[in-house]
Amino acid sequence: MQKIRLIIEYDGTGYHGWQLQRNEVTIQGILEDRIRNITGELSRVMGASRTDAGVHALGQVAAFSTSSDLGPERIQQALNALLPSDIRILDASIVNNTFQPRDDALRKRYFYIIANQNSSSGFLFRYAWLIRQPLDLKSMRTAGAVLPGLHDFSSFMGTGSGIKNPVRELLSLEIRSMKKISFMTGGVKGNFIKITVEANGFLRHMVRNIVGTLAEVGRGKISADRMKEILLSCDRKCAGPTAPGNGLFLERITY
Amino acid sequence: MQKIRLIIEYDGTGYHGWQLQRNEVTIQGILEDRIRNITGELSRVMGASRTDAGVHALGQVAAFSTSSDLGPERIQQALNALLPSDIRILDASIVNNTFQPRDDALRKRYFYIIANQNSSSGFLFRYAWLIRQPLDLKSMRTAGAVLPGLHDFSSFMGTGSGIKNPVRELLSLEIRSMKKISFMTGGVKGNFIKITVEANGFLRHMVRNIVGTLAEVGRGKISADRMKEILLSCDRKCAGPTAPGNGLFLERITY
Repeated sequence: MQKIRLIIEYDGTGYHGWQLQRNEVTIQGILEDRIRNITGELSRVMGASRTDAGVHALGQVAAFSTSSDLGPERIQQALNALLPSDIRILDASIVNNTFQPRDDALRKRYFYIIANQNSSSGFLFRYAWLIRQPLDLKSMRTAGAVLPGLHDFSSFMGTGSGIKNPVRELLSLEIRSMKKISFMTGGVKGNFIKITVEANGFLRHMVRNIVGTLAEVGRGKISADRMKEILLSCDRKCAGPTAPGNGLFLERITY
Repeated sequence: MQKIRLIIEYDGTGYHGWQLQRNEVTIQGILEDRIRNITGELSRVMGASRTDAGVHALGQVAAFSTSSDLGPERIQQALNALLPSDIRILDASIVNNTFQPRDDALRKRYFYIIANQNSSSGFLFRYAWLIRQPLDLKSMRTAGAVLPGLHDFSSFMGTGSGIKNPVRELLSLEIRSMKKISFMTGGVKGNFIKITVEANGFLRHMVRNIVGTLAEVGRGKISADRMKEILLSCDRKCAGPTAPGNGLFLERITY
């Protein structure tokens, strides 16, 4: 048996997220199917991050064990030939049999794009959350500054996650304003907000719930100084709504 | 009656092109449907360019007449509220009743993106033609230099177009090599070829057939010095295949 690690890029628009589901097309499901086509055997593909429906990945990490003796380069080529064009294997390599993509990750980085303007571009709607009301960046930054550190993040945890320990260390949270988003050979002008977060791990919906809460702060519906209270409440009902999946990108996982 | 001119951006991935078709979702069909929702009457929407299935537009121009007295700003807002997110009205204005988007256009500009590399990105497949074999840019430029000018472009005209006069003036053809394509907050590295063409008008499939022929030259299947012969033959069978629609962008129409 050999264990293969994959680095995967995907446009999540057409998928019901990473995790295998009956009767739904998921990234994990497609990968397991194509690996079976190549090796002739069913391998469970373990992913580092269970991205939700519509969420994109620039560097998802996954691994599977196989008795096939095909080299990683051949596996990468065969997968890229068989996979849909919106899922690409950026790298494949042999790793130690003990490698666990999820448990071994030291930290993960995500970013989220908000198009804070009257109208979005026909090309960016897959990749940004359109908010028409002007957001107050200063309040958002004040509220966001409360979150880094080692905390119980229950207030930002989606229900039904079944996780016992809701403590995570948020290493950084950055909110940047951008006047242009690059697309293909040009740029789409507008008013964009990019929120980048890095942590040693994330709870279910944690990034989307943090972004949804920051957007409420930006809108003036939640005052910035309430963020500390929301965090300490450990109560999901105190925080804001879950931001839509399409603006979220899994950027990088560090081991 | 007032005549409204629209400037429209769209991601063509999900559509069977511009032109109205029975039982197919087209840009024109969606626009006429949404205009009827707003004005309560059926208006024929005339487009400047009949883009094919999968082809994108950064600045399509269209016009329709209506007895509604809604101002152009209101019409733009209402359309953007009702249209799918991948079709956006960038501008709406009142024009003279004699305005004809197609006939009045002085020139149109398109560009085409080829990803000339082993693998494409999961985010660019909608917007580029993946060609794995390295293309010879020098030969492509030599062949491309033959085309500008006033010519009978029948060799590059799709069948069934019903056009009587196949003479067009190709104002420019430029082939650029790019090592990076910008996407959202970053760049996708690789080897890209951007072909930009401008003409006083284009025949059916003309850009895609020119690009398909240039790709054959780049592959070495057609020698660069045969381009003149292909042009002069006025025979579609002499030219190369039709490049896929997804790499093509209608960039700008000048009046």
